[in-house]
Amino acid sequence: MILQDDNKAVVLLSGGLDSATALAIAKNAGFACHCLSFDYGQRHMLELAAAAKITGHLGGVDHRIVKIDLSKDGGFGSSALTDDIPVPKQCQPDGEIPITYVPARNTIFLSIALGYAEVIGAFDIFIGVTMVDYSGYPDCRQEFITAFESMANLATIATVKGEQKLKIHAPLIAMSKAEIITTGTDLGVDYSLMHSCYDPTDKGLACGKCDSCRFRRAGFEEAGVPDPTKYSYQ
Amino acid sequence: MILQDDNKAVVLLSGGLDSATALAIAKNAGFACHCLSFDYGQRHMLELAAAAKITGHLGGVDHRIVKIDLSKDGGFGSSALTDDIPVPKQCQPDGEIPITYVPARNTIFLSIALGYAEVIGAFDIFIGVTMVDYSGYPDCRQEFITAFESMANLATIATVKGEQKLKIHAPLIAMSKAEIITTGTDLGVDYSLMHSCYDPTDKGLACGKCDSCRFRRAGFEEAGVPDPTKYSYQ
Repeated sequence: MILQDDNKAVVLLSGGLDSATALAIAKNAGFACHCLSFDYGQRHMLELAAAAKITGHLGGVDHRIVKIDLSKDGGFGSSALTDDIPVPKQCQPDGEIPITYVPARNTIFLSIALGYAEVIGAFDIFIGVTMVDYSGYPDCRQEFITAFESMANLATIATVKGEQKLKIHAPLIAMSKAEIITTGTDLGVDYSLMHSCYDPTDKGLACGKCDSCRFRRAGFEEAGVPDPTKYSYQ
Repeated sequence: MILQDDNKAVVLLSGGLDSATALAIAKNAGFACHCLSFDYGQRHMLELAAAAKITGHLGGVDHRIVKIDLSKDGGFGSSALTDDIPVPKQCQPDGEIPITYVPARNTIFLSIALGYAEVIGAFDIFIGVTMVDYSGYPDCRQEFITAFESMANLATIATVKGEQKLKIHAPLIAMSKAEIITTGTDLGVDYSLMHSCYDPTDKGLACGKCDSCRFRRAGFEEAGVPDPTKYSYQ
């Protein structure tokens, strides 16, 4: 096991706009970025293909896909992102948790990233969560990230024995979608490579109506940046 | 999603002596126990077969195996429990972390248990870690368990919105191996069903020499309970 390497980071990459921007920020900060995606039983694999492309585009060191079944078949499920539940096409009422929520998903992804970080000798993990457009997911809030970081620093050999502390970076946490897009555009991110629609067509076109599409579209408008997404109705 | 059920618990079951005793304690406390094991690329599958038997023996409601590759092939590895590294057959020097350590294993297992708990409507998770004979694993300490519980209560809808708090039970944490065996024996646990050797023979006999075997054998001796383990040298 490599013990310490200041420059290595594990970057969680979903294939969507937010995590790609987080990767661009990590790269710009000088980290050697080891990208990690999950084949967790999501309804479509477009986002994993996008994540591989994004790693290449933004100069990640490597891209690894970890397989874990969080769908109903795997005993989990109850989410429109993994199971045969229609993806909602209207705004979520305030205070309601959307059906696209996957139980404990970010906790599980960060935990696996933590193990991976220890194996490769990284002390920095990047995750592209954002509180502003967070759709009501509890595991997209700063207090969750802070608590995870405290736990992580008690969980592994490298953090318990070493002098370096593990840091969970959530650089987008206080950004609006427009700010994320502006930041990424300034860093040279090509947003035409992303996939972030919850319910794309068979040909991979975005629906334009789900939470993810609506937030993205409004974000490009507000940022004054042309939206390169290919929509099904165009 | 079922929202609340006081009586449901998720019990992490490895197939070994400790987690079986934790299951017996959970069952004795009145919980309906949903057992969870992991096919994580460990060197042998004997422990998963044992976990299934233990669930039946101790009256667990059901037993689910989640597959996640934490071996070297999966990009993890660096442990004698998952990879082609010889299992040590002598005492670990004080303060050294054994090569049988799997990076962030308990964090990953507890995170998946957390997602599963949210899906089935449980607020109690049992894990059979013990600080006393913990072999130097950082994720077997009370401060880790406490930090994980704090994080978990910020991570899920059920804990954020509900009035019930998620509890991580580590009932063995302060027990010696002898105390665990005495407690389990009093609760009717049949320890002949367990498998906890790190390096069994092809026929499933325990080596008698690895950390796990030595702690178990000494525990039975100290407890004054006959050791039902089948050793390779007998």
